[in-house]
Amino acid sequence: MNELYLDDFHVGQKFGSGRLRVETNQIKAFAAEFDPQPFHLDEEVAKSSFFGGLAASGWHTAALTMRLLVTGDLKPAGGVIGASNEISWTRPVRPGDELRVESEVLEVRPSKSRPEQGLIKLRSTTLNQNEEPVQVLIANLVVPRRAALPGSSEAAAMGR
Amino acid sequence: MNELYLDDFHVGQKFGSGRLRVETNQIKAFAAEFDPQPFHLDEEVAKSSFFGGLAASGWHTAALTMRLLVTGDLKPAGGVIGASNEISWTRPVRPGDELRVESEVLEVRPSKSRPEQGLIKLRSTTLNQNEEPVQVLIANLVVPRRAALPGSSEAAAMGR
Repeated sequence: MNELYLDDFHVGQKFGSGRLRVETNQIKAFAAEFDPQPFHLDEEVAKSSFFGGLAASGWHTAALTMRLLVTGDLKPAGGVIGASNEISWTRPVRPGDELRVESEVLEVRPSKSRPEQGLIKLRSTTLNQNEEPVQVLIANLVVPRRAALPGSSEAAAMGR
Repeated sequence: MNELYLDDFHVGQKFGSGRLRVETNQIKAFAAEFDPQPFHLDEEVAKSSFFGGLAASGWHTAALTMRLLVTGDLKPAGGVIGASNEISWTRPVRPGDELRVESEVLEVRPSKSRPEQGLIKLRSTTLNQNEEPVQVLIANLVVPRRAALPGSSEAAAMGR
């Protein structure tokens, strides 16, 4: 598993991901369920819209980014649990685009009020097949400290 | 339609939404596709997780919030188009929760570089059936100015 605790993270650490190709039918299906606006649903209407062509909902890009994160190299103990995020969409995601995510640790902060955990600030840049960023996500992730998880050897030694 | 241009927005303006009930199978289906972590997929495993029970992916909550926004009272001309966002999840979304969104305009800013549009800053709070906030989204939305959209009477008068 090689799960990472707060104590294992350091500023500048980088993590990669696999790749995901986004198809037209997925863009439309996501939009129909969550973001039913013409420029995410209809090629013709999209041409004369802000996006100048069919584009994935930003929330679809965000969701795909989460899949790439969760299935990628970053494995915090306890899971990828976001508390707060800043998210910008820098470029439309188009049918056929192939996405991957590059993440870098910006900060590592033990919690003052909850000594069993802390936060890491992570910048995750989602790139298309041309290495152009389509989304930048700055996420604050909740990560347990090494002794905190029930079942870990140190937690057991501490009688938890 | 009653679509709103930048000129129609003012600080303090509020917009409501309908309601959406979140079912267990939807939580699991979204998670299986975009956020395949045990606490979003399996009730038993979720009990001993950070969330203490099955909880929707935050990105699912974000996507449902977008649906409520797009189908709600806020109708910017040109659509609901986010440029950047801050998003916090303040409380887990559980199976059976019924969500709605309350939005308030925090800022209205004409663009200096692109006179045909501007940005509104909108705080959208997603509430559950107990009026507890589950998500707070601060979104910067791109909104056209009244003369900017092709086909609008003023745009036509300007020869666009």
